[in-house]
Amino acid sequence: MEITYNYFDNSDAHLPPGFRFHPTDEELITYYLLKKVLDCNFTGRAIAEVDLNKCEPWELPAKAKMGEKEWYFFSLRDRKYPTGLRTNRATEAGYWKATGKDREIYSSKTCALVGMKKTLVFYRGRAPKGEKSNWVMHEYRLEGKFAYQYLSRSSKVFYIYHIHAHSYFIRHFSSV
Amino acid sequence: MEITYNYFDNSDAHLPPGFRFHPTDEELITYYLLKKVLDCNFTGRAIAEVDLNKCEPWELPAKAKMGEKEWYFFSLRDRKYPTGLRTNRATEAGYWKATGKDREIYSSKTCALVGMKKTLVFYRGRAPKGEKSNWVMHEYRLEGKFAYQYLSRSSKVFYIYHIHAHSYFIRHFSSV
Repeated sequence: MEITYNYFDNSDAHLPPGFRFHPTDEELITYYLLKKVLDCNFTGRAIAEVDLNKCEPWELPAKAKMGEKEWYFFSLRDRKYPTGLRTNRATEAGYWKATGKDREIYSSKTCALVGMKKTLVFYRGRAPKGEKSNWVMHEYRLEGKFAYQYLSRSSKVFYIYHIHAHSYFIRHFSSV
Repeated sequence: MEITYNYFDNSDAHLPPGFRFHPTDEELITYYLLKKVLDCNFTGRAIAEVDLNKCEPWELPAKAKMGEKEWYFFSLRDRKYPTGLRTNRATEAGYWKATGKDREIYSSKTCALVGMKKTLVFYRGRAPKGEKSNWVMHEYRLEGKFAYQYLSRSSKVFYIYHIHAHSYFIRHFSSV
């Protein structure tokens, strides 16, 4: 049996057993999303870039960089109408619909508001007659101080999406 | 702002933001504990070796290799009496007491029983008058096929311990 080996090699696929990408909300906002908004060429080991309007949820796991039952993506915000503020969250097969209230994310160091987290559920079909699925995602956006300092009208507005199928998620975390 | 960097360097302290040691029960048994039982010199980036009878729970975080609110350790089983099977789980300040039923850990590949998980709570003082604390740990041991194949009477019997203070743990995972 091999006992010694290189714990963290440079391949994207390999992490030592037990090591996972399990970021806090704050890490997603203050590290990954901020880096991406400041430089759209930023790429990391954990979060792939996709166009969420062109991908059905069940196609996303294959596009992710890592993750067994939950996956993280960057996606550019697509406005529903060119001059409006509403975000287009439709795909060919259905649409993502917000559920619950948006949650505020604060910096643990400065206590400043740095981002917001919205929960969305995927419905197959077209609103308002869509059929609810078990695909759920959290959408993270810059807000407060960070949005004010780093987003301008001309910025490409990236969001981070944390996606999972609901039954998987429950099973995964209930073993903790 | 630095955009590209080496994600996994060789220092023990550094992991990129969001990456954590969050192993499943099966990974702890079939990977880390098995390696340690087969070679007592095995050492890894995530799990330090301690003598649990010589450490109070509140001293353990400083002895861990990584972890913010939960920590993993190898420890040799200390028999209560030289010829008996009971395990000594006393420290100078108190003792670890089992709670609930032991849980069986199965291989997801072969479905064979590979280990057991016991939950223990730390009490200050001496039994039966100890005062319950919020320190909790899970004890992992080889069992079934693995114990039969790899443990002999002369083996040094290592266990893995997963330790946390209860209020920390709840807070940590409720944010998921």
